[in-house]
This record gives sequence, C-alpha cells and structure tokens, in this order.
Amino acid sequence: MTGLTVGVDVGGSKVLAVLADAEGAVHAEARHATPPHEDAPGVVVADTVAGAIDDLSREAGRALDGLPVGVGLPGMLDRDGVLAVSPNLPSASGADMAAVLAARLGGRAVVLANDADAAAVAEHRLGAARGVDEFVLVTLGTGIGGGLVVDGRLLRGAHGYAGEIGHVVVDPSGPRCPCGRRGCWERYASGAGVARLAREAAVSGRLASLVAEVGDPEAVRGEDVTHAAAAGDREALAVLDEVGWWLALGLANLAAILDPGLFVLGGGLVEVSTLLLPPTRRHLAGHLEGGERRGVVDVVAAELGTRAGAIGASLLAADAERGPA
Amino acid sequence: MTGLTVGVDVGGSKVLAVLADAEGAVHAEARHATPPHEDAPGVVVADTVAGAIDDLSREAGRALDGLPVGVGLPGMLDRDGVLAVSPNLPSASGADMAAVLAARLGGRAVVLANDADAAAVAEHRLGAARGVDEFVLVTLGTGIGGGLVVDGRLLRGAHGYAGEIGHVVVDPSGPRCPCGRRGCWERYASGAGVARLAREAAVSGRLASLVAEVGDPEAVRGEDVTHAAAAGDREALAVLDEVGWWLALGLANLAAILDPGLFVLGGGLVEVSTLLLPPTRRHLAGHLEGGERRGVVDVVAAELGTRAGAIGASLLAADAERGPA
Repeated sequence: MTGLTVGVDVGGSKVLAVLADAEGAVHAEARHATPPHEDAPGVVVADTVAGAIDDLSREAGRALDGLPVGVGLPGMLDRDGVLAVSPNLPSASGADMAAVLAARLGGRAVVLANDADAAAVAEHRLGAARGVDEFVLVTLGTGIGGGLVVDGRLLRGAHGYAGEIGHVVVDPSGPRCPCGRRGCWERYASGAGVARLAREAAVSGRLASLVAEVGDPEAVRGEDVTHAAAAGDREALAVLDEVGWWLALGLANLAAILDPGLFVLGGGLVEVSTLLLPPTRRHLAGHLEGGERRGVVDVVAAELGTRAGAIGASLLAADAERGPA
Repeated sequence: MTGLTVGVDVGGSKVLAVLADAEGAVHAEARHATPPHEDAPGVVVADTVAGAIDDLSREAGRALDGLPVGVGLPGMLDRDGVLAVSPNLPSASGADMAAVLAARLGGRAVVLANDADAAAVAEHRLGAARGVDEFVLVTLGTGIGGGLVVDGRLLRGAHGYAGEIGHVVVDPSGPRCPCGRRGCWERYASGAGVARLAREAAVSGRLASLVAEVGDPEAVRGEDVTHAAAAGDREALAVLDEVGWWLALGLANLAAILDPGLFVLGGGLVEVSTLLLPPTRRHLAGHLEGGERRGVVDVVAAELGTRAGAIGASLLAADAERGPA
C-alpha cells in the first residue's frame, strides 16, 4: 500500500490517531486520553501523540516509522508551529509544538494544523462540504473550534490564528471562560456549554426526573441530559433547545461576518446531532440578519464524524509529501 | 483628462459623490442628504444619486454623461445588485438597485458595491492599508459596516453579504436594533452607539456640566459628547472610553474569527479618531484572546477619511471599465 499517512487529532479530552490513505480511507485507528497539565509545555502531549502512533502501529499490524504524520491541535497555532494559546489544551499552551513533535517523532515529516482546519479539509474533500467552496466547519467538543473555507481554501489569517470562533464574546457579563474573558460563545454551545446549561437547569429546579435519577442536581452532567433527551424527556429536550438557541446565535454572528453557504457541525457533540440540529436550524432562521429576505443557511452534521480532524491531518500530511500544488 | 469615473457613497444620513481619476485623486465632490422612507424601494435613493451626480457635474464644470459610475450602498447587497436588507437605508431595503439605478442613470456603466467594501478597496490601494493583505476596514457611521480583505482580495461570501460586522450580537438581551434583533455591536460602537451611550450617561446623572449646558439630559447628542470630550470634559471622555471598550470588544471578536494584521477605522466617527483610538487600542489589548502571547493588532484611522467609500466606488467603476484583471 503506498500513499499512507498518519493523522493525529489532539482534543481537549482525547487523542485520536488514524492510518489513512490519500483518499482518506481509514486503515487503522487508536485513541488515548489527553494528558493533564505539566511543567514542560507540549512534552506530555508529544509523548501521547507518539504513544497513539505506537498503538496505531500495533492495530495496523505494521511499522509506521517512515510515514508522514499530520497533527491537528486545538487553539491558536501560528504559521511556525507555535501553539501560542490553547485554552482547552493548557498543557501545551505556549509550546513550540513543531520543535517538540519533531524531537519526539524524529525522522518523520510532521505537519501541524489547527484541529478544526484539519477537519474542514476532510469534510471539504470527502464529507459534508464536498463541492461547497464557502463554508464554516464548527467543531463542538470540549470547546468550539472553527475551520473557515473561503473560495475553496482555508482562511488562515495574518498569523495563522483565524477560526477561533469559540471565543467570540456573545455576552460580556456572561460566565468566565478558560481563555480569561467572559461570555465566550463556547461557554454556551460546546460540550462544556451543554454541561453548564444542564447543571443550571438542574439546580434551578428543572430536569426533575433526571435529578431524581442522578440524586444531586449539582452532579447532573451534559451526557445525562443528552441521554434523557434521546429518551424523550421533555425538560432535557428543553435544555438542548436552549443549547440550540445559543448555537444558532453564534452561527448567525458568523453568517453576518462571513456569509457562508453552509455550516458543518463536527466534534464530539455531533454524536447527538439528531437532537441538536432541529432546534439549531429553527433558531438560526430567527437569528439571521435579514431573516427571510436573505434565505436560510443550511446546517448539517459532519459526515466524517469525530474522525474528521484525524483524517484531515492525514490528508494535510499527504499534501505536504507531494509538495506545493 | 482620461480615466475619470464617478464614485457615489450612499450612507444612512448622507450621499457623497466624487469625480476621481484612476489613481483615486478627487477632482470634484458633492453631497446630498439621504432621503427618508418611501413606497417604491430604491427610487428616491436613485434620484438622490442622480442629483448628486448633477451637482458634481456643476462642481466639476463639465458634463459627466459618459463616465462610469460606481455606487457604494450600505447593507446586504447580493451579487446581482439586489439590496436584500439594509437596516440603515430602509428606503432602499429589498430593492433591485442594479435595475433601479440603471434605469435612472441610463446609458452609463454602473457598478454596485457594499459601501464598506468600496472603502476597503480605497484604503488598500491608496490609504492606511497599503501593502497590508489581511485587514478589516470598519466604517463607523450611522451603523457599522465592514470590508474584509483576505489575501489581498475582498471577502464577499457565498451571496455577497459578507462583512455585516455591525450585526454581530454581543449581548442578546441588549437594546433593540433596526435589524429586528437585540444587542448588535453597532448599538454600542457606531454613531448611533455613541448617541445612545451619551444619552444613558446623561439620564443617569453623569455628564453634569454638559447637561447643564444642553438643558435636558434626554436631548444630549453624540456630537455634544464628542465636542465636550475634545474640550477635555472628563465625564465626556469617560463616555468615549466606554464606546472604545465596546468598539474593542467587537474588534476582538473579528480578530478571533479572521486574525487580521490591521484594523482600519473609517466612516463619520473617524473624525473623532484622536479621541477614540487611544481607548480603543488600550481596551483591545485586554479583549484579545491570547492577550500578550498573540501580540496586539494595530488599529489606525482611515487615511481617506469619510471619502474612502466614494473613492473606492470610483476605483471599482474604473476596474469594471478595464475589464477582468
């Protein structure tokens, strides 16, 4: 088999590695938990990436030593491979990840990308945005990431930091964000947002049957609410409706600025997309400036699911191997 | 003189027409008030554009009949020249402005553009953003408009609606916006925003000396505050500091999404840029995700001032005359 590359997606809570070919077909995959905070920025993350690649090698039943590796990282990755700021991966925030990963994975070609940018590349070539040259990939994981595709190409920005859409402030007196500010969009519409709104609902006396089951309103988690909603619990569905309202608010903000033809939702929360998409679409129609006159912008689930980032990273590694187009 | 074109900038409160050459040098200019609401969308606006061009002809001392005309319009102008939605130019909202203007200015080449896009073109070629290929032009007029330049080119979006940055919601429980929603950025940081924050300050008992002068706190206008601030009134300066805080909040939101290398502030409020830029820059450093690690994004005043939109419209008319690059 030729043209194989390794793609690794480093998220706030887990690391996914895939072995993929140039068409994005996945031949093997491996998962690791993301390590906690550490003293030497990036080193434990690099160890975990290396560990995931070792597991991938066992899974694939072959050595992967010579293969190019693409790595998707959450946060503000500059064009030189420095992860300037990463609220959801504090253990690598500030690290020169290009240098740290090159040292740890020595002897291979290593390509770095923002995780959502990698996912956008995968969805554009192989997934929900095939043939769409103006779209936004929104990753709903621990936080919210964004891959912006304009005129068929990734919008990178002056430094490489474009697409930090989770940190658009939608209420300056809102809850604190790990980034240090208040009321960032991802406080309302990411996995962390679902958890926060679920706990608020439980503590304020809603979600009665769920609280009776869990025992303590403070202990209600986002997953409890999505499970209850999937089972038809009306109060749990109301919480997801609230999440959809906030999700749509942020999408409307992006539409005001970028006017994309499509929104693609990826990341961990996409697993509950059958619950989240209907309220999000309904609220988006109300949030969009111009309303009916501008027409709606469609919102769809990422087709490559939670593997989009890792597959995109492998595609970017293959691109780099081929050289400039 | 060859290569002359007419550029017209239609704002929420006034229309400016210029006669300019291909280098953007202005040979004559004329101003008109923007007409109020009307029944046939766009017709009175077209009449006003025609009237401004007649005045321009008298001012220039020559007929302008054959010259191409570029017209900048505020709001969501689609790629076919339909002004789908224009909260700050309600009399033309929904009008097929390409058709209405072609009928009214018959026999000329007419090129339409979003007003802030036109201003961005002018500042990029001739003004504050020369040599900068990643920047955002922010027009602070009645509302807030945006011209987004990415990789040296205007970001237009899927339909032509990109850059509606004034309608990014920064507080969903904030004041009503003419667009129908609540808490749009332009409610805080445009001319209308200054007026609102000034009135709020006056009514809440601040701005004592200014209120004593004006007589009625409800009658305090934005201009009163900027004049008082220019004269050193501390409470008026505090209101502009508040405006700068909100302006910086919205710029930080744009930086999170687009990562521009520069912000250029244009529009009517740029006339008070010596008062507004220092607080805006100071607050932006605090609002930017990543803070010191990402470095600051500079904020400068548009060099072509309030004529940027009209000059840009004339440049776009000249581009169209020359044909595709």
